[in-house]
Amino acid sequence: MTLLYADPEVAAALDAATTVAAMRAALLAAYEGRLIAPPRAAAPLDGGRMVLTAGHLVGEWYGFRSYDTFGHEQGEQLVVLHDARTGAVRAVAVGEELGSRRTGGLGGLAVDALARPDAATLGVIGSGRQAWTQVWAAAAVRPLREVVVHSRSAARRDAFAARVRAELGVPARAVATPGAAVAGRDLVVLATTSPTPVLCAADLSPGTHVNAVGFKQLDRSEFGTDLLDTADLLVTDSPAQAADYQPPMLAATPPYAERLRDLGGILAGAVPGRTTADQVSVFCSTGLAGTEVFLLDALTRVGVAAR
Amino acid sequence: MTLLYADPEVAAALDAATTVAAMRAALLAAYEGRLIAPPRAAAPLDGGRMVLTAGHLVGEWYGFRSYDTFGHEQGEQLVVLHDARTGAVRAVAVGEELGSRRTGGLGGLAVDALARPDAATLGVIGSGRQAWTQVWAAAAVRPLREVVVHSRSAARRDAFAARVRAELGVPARAVATPGAAVAGRDLVVLATTSPTPVLCAADLSPGTHVNAVGFKQLDRSEFGTDLLDTADLLVTDSPAQAADYQPPMLAATPPYAERLRDLGGILAGAVPGRTTADQVSVFCSTGLAGTEVFLLDALTRVGVAAR
Repeated sequence: MTLLYADPEVAAALDAATTVAAMRAALLAAYEGRLIAPPRAAAPLDGGRMVLTAGHLVGEWYGFRSYDTFGHEQGEQLVVLHDARTGAVRAVAVGEELGSRRTGGLGGLAVDALARPDAATLGVIGSGRQAWTQVWAAAAVRPLREVVVHSRSAARRDAFAARVRAELGVPARAVATPGAAVAGRDLVVLATTSPTPVLCAADLSPGTHVNAVGFKQLDRSEFGTDLLDTADLLVTDSPAQAADYQPPMLAATPPYAERLRDLGGILAGAVPGRTTADQVSVFCSTGLAGTEVFLLDALTRVGVAAR
Repeated sequence: MTLLYADPEVAAALDAATTVAAMRAALLAAYEGRLIAPPRAAAPLDGGRMVLTAGHLVGEWYGFRSYDTFGHEQGEQLVVLHDARTGAVRAVAVGEELGSRRTGGLGGLAVDALARPDAATLGVIGSGRQAWTQVWAAAAVRPLREVVVHSRSAARRDAFAARVRAELGVPARAVATPGAAVAGRDLVVLATTSPTPVLCAADLSPGTHVNAVGFKQLDRSEFGTDLLDTADLLVTDSPAQAADYQPPMLAATPPYAERLRDLGGILAGAVPGRTTADQVSVFCSTGLAGTEVFLLDALTRVGVAAR
């Protein structure tokens, strides 16, 4: 019997610690070759495409996320979990919540693996759904003392700060410029829809960790190469997907590509991570395929009532 | 709010007349260019593939069927219906029932369009799920007087005949040879898993209509070229998909390809169908992409309770 989850059930059941733990397991499985995550497949549909990103945790489950490119404001995605032993559909999640918590969980995992142990202040540029889940997950891996947010809309950044105070219990305030949001912070999140840089790397303090969640491609990126030049560590959750971006992902082009490390390898202890407190680390989030299905599997295990 | 249908709800709600009517609307929409049905897309998953066949009824809905090639006995498919105006997921169907009723409905539609108006006897080779939905749908478009079934297992063909009597109220009996099943029948259904011919075209009477549902490719087909040579009319539900088969579909290779007609065109009155009572017509079922989503849309309109 198939379980169906909509956004309210996902939001009620998937806390940040569970989500980050699932993403840790997913990246380790991918690094060890147990999580198969092929390139996406797509079907053209006149005005948009139907896209499928699939995953297979060998011996456990297989499944996919589907989404489309019609650009609906309220469009919904699907995540589907098949039992690998029987082929039965164990669960289906409909909506946006699972996908954005997945991306937040990857960001929280990157903070946990790459930021200084004593990181306690966070600056975020952007005030949308992705910005929120990044802060939500970061707060689960570091005891945050302050969150400072900037986005172009004063009303939205004020609302974001209020939400951080109310839901995460962390002091938070909105500021009028990107520089004021990131200067002196231990952690920085970029989660905008901007196709041009919103950050000057010179504003960052030594030792900062940056999660980059928005556009990060040649000629369409929320940060410039100054950030990559400043970074001592460049890390991604899927080197294979990073290498596949069209147009290319900035961090996967020369001279940066040879420095780009696999977060799964760092988690496995096979690749070095941060070695000193003053290094700047940058995580380029790609959204490893199969991680949504991994998270749906985790959701079925926390015992939430499906609808 | 997404509706979820499993096999019991689909079986309870989708009668044969509704299904055939939906397939008629689908084939007309495809013929008129309103139903967009691109080639399938697939992602390799180590041991199997995840496959997506998508469809888009412009202005109404888009969606897809997903299935895999791991070969599980109890494996389940998914059909997903998005609202084209909002992108929201209106409904999801899990299981096998919607897909096999879809294929049955296409077969019933072919019988209605191509068989003699007075066709009343049906011979079927095969006793599985596909054989059943073919007979189920044929009984909705012609008042059947008798069904005669052959399959290799005596127990299964006896059970099939008993089910026809019980559920369709049509006299039915099992016979020990394929020839005895098809000789003298007005309608013939081939719905086996055989990769080699199970039928001699010489056993068919003039005026017979044949639905071919199983393998129909070069070197892997439940019928031989004798059937195609005998046929006065060769028809398929998707000439484009027929031309795309790998290995090629027999009826889409020379000298048969130039005679292969589009059922949608016949329904639209743009392509001639049967013109005399003694013609042999053969329908090569391909399963036009998007028709499962079409049928799920119809299911949401008959007002069945989802689970």
